[in-house]
Amino acid sequence: MKSGLLQTPIGEGQDCLGEEMHRFASELYPICRSITGRGIRETLARIQQRIPLKLTEIPTGTPVFDWTVPREWNIRDAYIRNSTGQRVVDFQQHTLHVVNYSAPVHATLSLRELKPHLHSLPDRPDWIPYRTSYYKEDWGLCLSHNQLLALEDDNYEVCIDSSLEAGHLALGECFLPGNSSDEVLISCHACHPSLANDNLSGITVATALAASLLQCKLRYSYRFLFLPGTIGAISWLALNKDTAQRVRHGLVLTCLGDMGGFHYKKSRRGDAEIDRAAVHVLRHCGEPTEVLDFSPYGYDERQYCSPGFNLPVGCLMRSVWGTFPEYHTSADNLDFIHPAQLTRSLRLCQSIVDVLENNRVYLNRNPWCEPQLGKRGLYGSTGGESLDREINARLWVLNMSDGAHSLLYIAEKSGLPFSEVLSAAELLRDSGLLSEVPESS
Amino acid sequence: MKSGLLQTPIGEGQDCLGEEMHRFASELYPICRSITGRGIRETLARIQQRIPLKLTEIPTGTPVFDWTVPREWNIRDAYIRNSTGQRVVDFQQHTLHVVNYSAPVHATLSLRELKPHLHSLPDRPDWIPYRTSYYKEDWGLCLSHNQLLALEDDNYEVCIDSSLEAGHLALGECFLPGNSSDEVLISCHACHPSLANDNLSGITVATALAASLLQCKLRYSYRFLFLPGTIGAISWLALNKDTAQRVRHGLVLTCLGDMGGFHYKKSRRGDAEIDRAAVHVLRHCGEPTEVLDFSPYGYDERQYCSPGFNLPVGCLMRSVWGTFPEYHTSADNLDFIHPAQLTRSLRLCQSIVDVLENNRVYLNRNPWCEPQLGKRGLYGSTGGESLDREINARLWVLNMSDGAHSLLYIAEKSGLPFSEVLSAAELLRDSGLLSEVPESS
Amino acid sequence: MKSGLLQTPIGEGQDCLGEEMHRFASELYPICRSITGRGIRETLARIQQRIPLKLTEIPTGTPVFDWTVPREWNIRDAYIRNSTGQRVVDFQQHTLHVVNYSAPVHATLSLRELKPHLHSLPDRPDWIPYRTSYYKEDWGLCLSHNQLLALEDDNYEVCIDSSLEAGHLALGECFLPGNSSDEVLISCHACHPSLANDNLSGITVATALAASLLQCKLRYSYRFLFLPGTIGAISWLALNKDTAQRVRHGLVLTCLGDMGGFHYKKSRRGDAEIDRAAVHVLRHCGEPTEVLDFSPYGYDERQYCSPGFNLPVGCLMRSVWGTFPEYHTSADNLDFIHPAQLTRSLRLCQSIVDVLENNRVYLNRNPWCEPQLGKRGLYGSTGGESLDREINARLWVLNMSDGAHSLLYIAEKSGLPFSEVLSAAELLRDSGLLSEVPESS
Repeated sequence: MKSGLLQTPIGEGQDCLGEEMHRFASELYPICRSITGRGIRETLARIQQRIPLKLTEIPTGTPVFDWTVPREWNIRDAYIRNSTGQRVVDFQQHTLHVVNYSAPVHATLSLRELKPHLHSLPDRPDWIPYRTSYYKEDWGLCLSHNQLLALEDDNYEVCIDSSLEAGHLALGECFLPGNSSDEVLISCHACHPSLANDNLSGITVATALAASLLQCKLRYSYRFLFLPGTIGAISWLALNKDTAQRVRHGLVLTCLGDMGGFHYKKSRRGDAEIDRAAVHVLRHCGEPTEVLDFSPYGYDERQYCSPGFNLPVGCLMRSVWGTFPEYHTSADNLDFIHPAQLTRSLRLCQSIVDVLENNRVYLNRNPWCEPQLGKRGLYGSTGGESLDREINARLWVLNMSDGAHSLLYIAEKSGLPFSEVLSAAELLRDSGLLSEVPESS
Repeated sequence: MKSGLLQTPIGEGQDCLGEEMHRFASELYPICRSITGRGIRETLARIQQRIPLKLTEIPTGTPVFDWTVPREWNIRDAYIRNSTGQRVVDFQQHTLHVVNYSAPVHATLSLRELKPHLHSLPDRPDWIPYRTSYYKEDWGLCLSHNQLLALEDDNYEVCIDSSLEAGHLALGECFLPGNSSDEVLISCHACHPSLANDNLSGITVATALAASLLQCKLRYSYRFLFLPGTIGAISWLALNKDTAQRVRHGLVLTCLGDMGGFHYKKSRRGDAEIDRAAVHVLRHCGEPTEVLDFSPYGYDERQYCSPGFNLPVGCLMRSVWGTFPEYHTSADNLDFIHPAQLTRSLRLCQSIVDVLENNRVYLNRNPWCEPQLGKRGLYGSTGGESLDREINARLWVLNMSDGAHSLLYIAEKSGLPFSEVLSAAELLRDSGLLSEVPESS
Repeated sequence: MKSGLLQTPIGEGQDCLGEEMHRFASELYPICRSITGRGIRETLARIQQRIPLKLTEIPTGTPVFDWTVPREWNIRDAYIRNSTGQRVVDFQQHTLHVVNYSAPVHATLSLRELKPHLHSLPDRPDWIPYRTSYYKEDWGLCLSHNQLLALEDDNYEVCIDSSLEAGHLALGECFLPGNSSDEVLISCHACHPSLANDNLSGITVATALAASLLQCKLRYSYRFLFLPGTIGAISWLALNKDTAQRVRHGLVLTCLGDMGGFHYKKSRRGDAEIDRAAVHVLRHCGEPTEVLDFSPYGYDERQYCSPGFNLPVGCLMRSVWGTFPEYHTSADNLDFIHPAQLTRSLRLCQSIVDVLENNRVYLNRNPWCEPQLGKRGLYGSTGGESLDREINARLWVLNMSDGAHSLLYIAEKSGLPFSEVLSAAELLRDSGLLSEVPESS
């Protein structure tokens, strides 16, 4: 990939891009996703309309490391009807109303019998919580606390028209081949129902990132994974142990549409090139940012960074899961994510990719003293002025290019943004002052 | 030793323990200890009433590295009597009144002749200073500055009824054998006369620590040394050079009864396991603490950390010698040390021992992705809630247990207290998810 | 060199020294130096009156790495005369009035035609700027902005009576042989015309440093270079590639007379002994100081630290080039540099040399426990007092002298000034307690 290709300034065109990402999120929002079933399958189909996607279906019961692919869950309807026949809780109104992965039920219960199966948020009385019960067969409904308080003593018809049956777990892969078989892995979970930031923002940014790379001549091969959280990543890793060994850099993308600043959580290695690239790009992005050390909970970096794999995979977020009140509630809706934030998140991902694609090692071909930049028109003509920013970058690249230091190292050491270091290196290379050190195979 | 055995919460029983330690200090307080003589011998005899103690007597004149075991000093009485026959300074009132290791003297002197042999503290006119003259034969008396000012021009009978004769240097060892011949060394000086914090607090805490370990099945062997400062440690090291090589961890204990927060002074190595264990335990102890870098002055860590030995021995104190006004004065008395502080100091020592005893390396037997904790009842049943503290500890242990990281490392990295990491590891081991990495011999 | 030889306290004698350095700067100030020509040759001749100096003349056209030795520039006169025959700008008044390295010109021009060749500082209307045009043939004159504003519409005779002809580039070397063929390099640029801090302060301090070392028995050999900036350093390196490999420590000296605190810019290596020595001396010098990381712009450390050489050469300054308003203007004059500051700068250089000369590794001959300092009169006689500063230094040296740690390391670790560590080491060596570890060849 040519340097800077992705870094066109944010103008009108990019607002379009943010709007398009938000529109895509709106399209996916009503679908009731889960870790298996038609919801995620339909989501993958819509991603496939935008980028090439290979779908994989893994049968229920397949052993994947310590786990087993679970039954396929599908749901048609769910409600609570009072004795007058009115739907007081209605899955058709919001996918969060049903505890995700609920077993089917159809019964008439008193309010007292029903209550243990109802979930609400007393502190946020207007919001519906998001609850799941994947690995313990159970059923339940979620509702706003105000809805719960409004329930009178009555006999209620409760119905969850779901099925849990042998089927498949679906996941999608978009593979973009590059010069090298070494891979960059981009992973997002796609198993949350109507949750915009924690799910759809990652999916839409990853899709747009893949689309933008489709046209590029790439140094690395790129693999985008859209899969159910935890079990999906475990399944993919179990079936692709060899491919996983080719992952040289990786990012889990999620929560990228809210108003928060960027957070990058480092890989388990802590000093992998992806960690250094992400930290560098964050430092220069002009937004508030924070770098977090690795911890073994969070998203699918838990699996990629398990000790057997220990892949160099970090996690990029704006607000961090569990730290914003809207997290895992109906308030994480389409108003909570913003086109401009999605665009900036995409740009940041592209900047990280830019670093990875262009982070090479050069060799100064005139290592004994400085080469005479002036006679090549690469130095200011009149001495004595204050240091020019571009000349500064050239001197840094020349001084550090002893065959042992990458451009990213030079950017870190000099405090200059990678793009300026790269421009200087390309100019010096084109002037014959630098030669590229071949990558060790 | 089983984890947590020592860490019963401080309740009524422990107040008893603190009272008992303070009572023991009170019993030892009146004895006039020195680096040799009956004082330290009687002190060791009283320790021996509480824990098994092997006594060693090293003859005067024995060469110990660059030093020689000095003559044995004993004292029966010392006083200054004025011309009316009144004892104006009286050793029977306080052991500090005599310069420790004073040569015998019996003379009548004018006040002017006497004064060069008198020591007082003008800034603290009520306190008697502590002075010694071990390696230069001399004599002197110490008194409060008010006493000194009250001395009228008179002829004084000065008497120090002491003896400096060939004899022995006495030291005591309590050895508790463990599974391994590798040793933990606990050392306290026992050569200071009536000084409570700087001497007796270390002796009583070390004695109680040894008593508490007596009943335990231990991983390491423990060696408690009660000996005269400097010359005692040098003598022990000279006669036990091979044993010293088995010391894997060590602590010098002193000044553990005052109201100050804990100070841990690192070993010369700076990053030994004892340093990391002590720093970790201090960080989580809930009291103000400070960690000090190694320096080659202080207590007997000077000898253990001399370059030839370079043993991993740190020093645990509350207030640091020389930094509190009561240091080396009669104000370092039984009121200056407190039962509750002695108890907390003992608990802290036990927590450090707990870390050393249980700091093992485990291997995650399912290193490829996370094992499914849920099916083993080790995970919360319903997804979506905030992270549970116990699950967090389990995930840390699983993720880091690649055979290279100890539980102490995991505690340091995760910020969790060692006890929680240990509980998680034991649970996971009992569930078959971890196996213990055998110690390299 | 014997320790402390250079570190006589600043008293009356040293004020003389500062005055003498300032007088020497005054002598050099009127000379119109450039990178070639009679100005630098005359400067070298005057240095030669004070210290032995070997002069080297390198012919125009000599290839030196990527550069070529340029033509020799000489100037006799330069002025602008108005139509009444009055010199409105006059090189005889100030050497800065001519753009250094200007090609000859003699013409009559209107004010409009003249203006593109005139340089002034609108923000500092009384100061004349310093401009050069070494590598692009051009001509120009510099004047105060007030002078420029006073120029009326007129026809002006402009004359630069200079020549650019084949000749030589001159540089001077003062070599002081020591016990070892390993060298300490001290380099200053001597190509700036009437600029006191940025040029003459470095020359005078370096000259005085060489003079003070002339009488000493030296461990290292010392090489002082006085040369034109950039092209001079490049030329010397090109002609002395083998000698350069013997440089074990080095300093570029400049801007050492102003009122600012010291700045030490580290070598490219960042942790070379010169870096540690300079940082240590700055820490203890009692003036405000700052340590700067290496960057590939600045003075001739750019060349010494180019990747092919990567010599351990740092740069010592008071105020940093480009950061003070007087920089490269006529305000960097003899009032801007101060005798006392020159003296303190010389003392600091001497302290750094003291560290380099005396930074040896010793071996404690009694590594098992502390040796008994008392019996050698090296310890306080009476126990129990607060720690004595000298004893402290002795204990540090004994404890750390295991054959792996230099005295500088011990000074860094203990926080003691090098001189105290050195005194302790010499005393202990003379007492037979330390032996010197021979230098590895």
